[in-house]
Amino acid sequence: MNKNKNDAISKITTREENFSEWYLDVIREADLAENSPVRGSMIIKPYGYALWENIQKILDREFKKRGTQNAYFPLLIPKSFLEKEAEHVEGFAKECAVVTHHRLEEKDGKLVPAGELDEPLVIRPTSETIIYDAFSKWIHSYRDLPLIVNQWCNVIRWEMRPRLFLRTTEFLWQEGHTAHATRKEADEKTLEMLEIYRQFVEEYLAISLIKGKKTESEKFPGAEYTSTIEAMMQDGKALQSGTSHMLAQNFAKSFDVSFLDENQEKQYVWQTSWGLSTRIIGALIMSHSDDKGLVLPPRIAPIQVVVIPIWSNDDEKKSVFEEVQKIKTELEAFGITYKVDEREGRPGSKYFEWERKGVPLRIEIGPRDIQKQSVVVVERILGKKEFVSNKELSSYIEESLERIQKTLLENSRRFRLENTREVSDYEEFKKIMDEKQGFIFAHLCLDKKCEEKIKEETNASTRCIPFEDGLDNAGKCIYCKKDAPNKVLFAKAY
Amino acid sequence: MNKNKNDAISKITTREENFSEWYLDVIREADLAENSPVRGSMIIKPYGYALWENIQKILDREFKKRGTQNAYFPLLIPKSFLEKEAEHVEGFAKECAVVTHHRLEEKDGKLVPAGELDEPLVIRPTSETIIYDAFSKWIHSYRDLPLIVNQWCNVIRWEMRPRLFLRTTEFLWQEGHTAHATRKEADEKTLEMLEIYRQFVEEYLAISLIKGKKTESEKFPGAEYTSTIEAMMQDGKALQSGTSHMLAQNFAKSFDVSFLDENQEKQYVWQTSWGLSTRIIGALIMSHSDDKGLVLPPRIAPIQVVVIPIWSNDDEKKSVFEEVQKIKTELEAFGITYKVDEREGRPGSKYFEWERKGVPLRIEIGPRDIQKQSVVVVERILGKKEFVSNKELSSYIEESLERIQKTLLENSRRFRLENTREVSDYEEFKKIMDEKQGFIFAHLCLDKKCEEKIKEETNASTRCIPFEDGLDNAGKCIYCKKDAPNKVLFAKAY
Repeated sequence: MNKNKNDAISKITTREENFSEWYLDVIREADLAENSPVRGSMIIKPYGYALWENIQKILDREFKKRGTQNAYFPLLIPKSFLEKEAEHVEGFAKECAVVTHHRLEEKDGKLVPAGELDEPLVIRPTSETIIYDAFSKWIHSYRDLPLIVNQWCNVIRWEMRPRLFLRTTEFLWQEGHTAHATRKEADEKTLEMLEIYRQFVEEYLAISLIKGKKTESEKFPGAEYTSTIEAMMQDGKALQSGTSHMLAQNFAKSFDVSFLDENQEKQYVWQTSWGLSTRIIGALIMSHSDDKGLVLPPRIAPIQVVVIPIWSNDDEKKSVFEEVQKIKTELEAFGITYKVDEREGRPGSKYFEWERKGVPLRIEIGPRDIQKQSVVVVERILGKKEFVSNKELSSYIEESLERIQKTLLENSRRFRLENTREVSDYEEFKKIMDEKQGFIFAHLCLDKKCEEKIKEETNASTRCIPFEDGLDNAGKCIYCKKDAPNKVLFAKAY
Repeated sequence: MNKNKNDAISKITTREENFSEWYLDVIREADLAENSPVRGSMIIKPYGYALWENIQKILDREFKKRGTQNAYFPLLIPKSFLEKEAEHVEGFAKECAVVTHHRLEEKDGKLVPAGELDEPLVIRPTSETIIYDAFSKWIHSYRDLPLIVNQWCNVIRWEMRPRLFLRTTEFLWQEGHTAHATRKEADEKTLEMLEIYRQFVEEYLAISLIKGKKTESEKFPGAEYTSTIEAMMQDGKALQSGTSHMLAQNFAKSFDVSFLDENQEKQYVWQTSWGLSTRIIGALIMSHSDDKGLVLPPRIAPIQVVVIPIWSNDDEKKSVFEEVQKIKTELEAFGITYKVDEREGRPGSKYFEWERKGVPLRIEIGPRDIQKQSVVVVERILGKKEFVSNKELSSYIEESLERIQKTLLENSRRFRLENTREVSDYEEFKKIMDEKQGFIFAHLCLDKKCEEKIKEETNASTRCIPFEDGLDNAGKCIYCKKDAPNKVLFAKAY
């Protein structure tokens, strides 16, 4: 057992024992994030932030390929702006941070808020209102369309039951906002961006997904409809991983975002908005990690390979580090990100630390390996150990990283399918949600009351009306037995 | 004259006529930014934001080369945190946005702030306090040092007289924060990061600078000293372009950021912080632009070359676009960023538009150019027109971009030197500040009152005590004639 002093005080709870404690333990031990003194706000530590930087890099490239331009809009939004779209303000008023003063002043030896504002400002919970106010000035003619703008920023939604990454008062995200001349274009854009998210989450984060449309009660406040990607965590719960909204002309009419068409007639634009946040890091953690700590898919890992040199005296150290230099050169040539753990200390403790941090591959190299012209390569997910000759090292590493990436996605897919059931009997539905959790496909009528009742009685909410073939057949509602147009995905959710 | 309908309503005021109107006109015509409905907060439009993205990319690479790790800390800071460092709170209390409530509630048909917080939260004006509170938990032993962390984020400092880029209530920046075991290391880090800024601003933004130390009254609230880079704008005023602060142990003691040294004794860390903000875009605009609009140095320009195809019928269009395709392939191979203006419309209007947007080079290509196997290349800064044969195009473009970059820095340097004077007589000082503006080097004693008086009487503030050789000689204070240890740089400032 590779244990050092630190390990004794930093045990990771097993998933079996307590899934939510396990989640927090993994975050702490992998050094991803921590709670801040401001309740609900987290500190994203360097290793966790490196994940977000990788996410940004990949998505930003995909957005720009599709004509998206980045911009930046104000953090503070006038209260009156929120109020312009009725559903929107209804959805966000209950959870927004309100700025009421613009300085602190000493009074009776204490600093108190001073300089009261005429109109309170709200810290953006999302930026539809402030951005579309700008769009209304930017767009004049059909020639100005489509307009495709994105911003990377922080937002605040006051959170009563905060949880690192999953529910934080402040979080980081990107929000894309578009305006189009026709409903058709906006419909297409909504689904195009959802597909970008799906590709990204499946191909880079190795999380298998279900794509679909939210029900009326779960859609974004102000949207005509919301499309979503839903993932299954290892405890069988669902996590909404990205959403793309068809706003139709709802905001266009509230903010007068209009244009003159080719016949010089005034038309309102058709709009979409779409976002993905640091919440996805919570999904990443809960999809792949195990009782030993974090597991990261190679394509998103800040460090793909950690190199651990092993030596017991200065001569050994010298020759081992010479060999390490060669390995570094080779990894660099292959574009593989790596870290050499050059610190003093027992190799065992280092193995343990990088295992907890989810680095996909570990290279161990000591004096005996040099003689044999080989190294030891250990895989994070299976703990599999291989002796690999120096000549084959880079190709071995490349292939292993690809294989691990693929395996993680397959595992995620298999787990989801194994824990997904089609159910038509409500008693069975309740039993499953009570005992096994997971996803359930069941018919649901269009009456909101059935949805509400099911949620009340089972804690499972509708996740989406899946786009998948074969699920759009009509049937009888699992709750009221009346006609139901299609099957809906149910799950307990984060 | 290439004028279209739009141009008539979008005249750029000349610098001679009114420098500050010129500045705003250039921003508007180049489509960089605009005021938002929230007083003091600006909207950074896509073309302006592309500049900021380039700035981020270059600086972030330089930071990471030197062991900096990015992270993210909360936007909201407890009031009590600000209060822990006396100078710090004194410096920022007067201009901070205060969050007092966490929801909006309907009352008499109006939405009003509700859910009052026990302790008001302040939107970060800078993050020393919240970051060092975290450092105090992260740092235990000398092995945890140095700690070098940076964040890219938004900050708010309430601004009574806002001005796009230069003074905005919300601005974007990076703030680096470090902790070291010794004073010497922290001193070195302070100057290392200032030098990174200097290199970046001179080599990429082509703005010539003076490096130096702020006087006591101009330093960062809470710092032992502040080092700065100061640039001269075309109106002779100074603009502080980046600062790096030696915090010594001031915050370490307030936030108990300490470590056990190699002898197991408790020591406070030595700290630095350093920042560069979107304000630098204001400096960029005012350094190079002219009465025709924006001028951008090639190394920071989002578009280095704009290609304008010229055609008058479909056949011409076809053959011109075939040729344009070849040019694109070549520019891409050379890593030159370009845009092809494929829109319908008169070439003259396009020239005019890209000129206003400061694109360094323009390629014009029409049917006659194809016959001659050449194109026309026009330089933004001098308007110089050259016929360049297709064979030589990419090397010509590369050389031109380099030459333009160099010329802009030389111009900036020459202009600064031409408008810098060493003065020992106060009457002359006043006259210069009144008539000609520019930089003045003059002796100043250590009494804050002289500095204050000079500011009151001339509007010129001390910019820095320059690091340059030859200026550190002792002399007599220009105001009170008492002993002065060195010369100080004075200027009116943005």
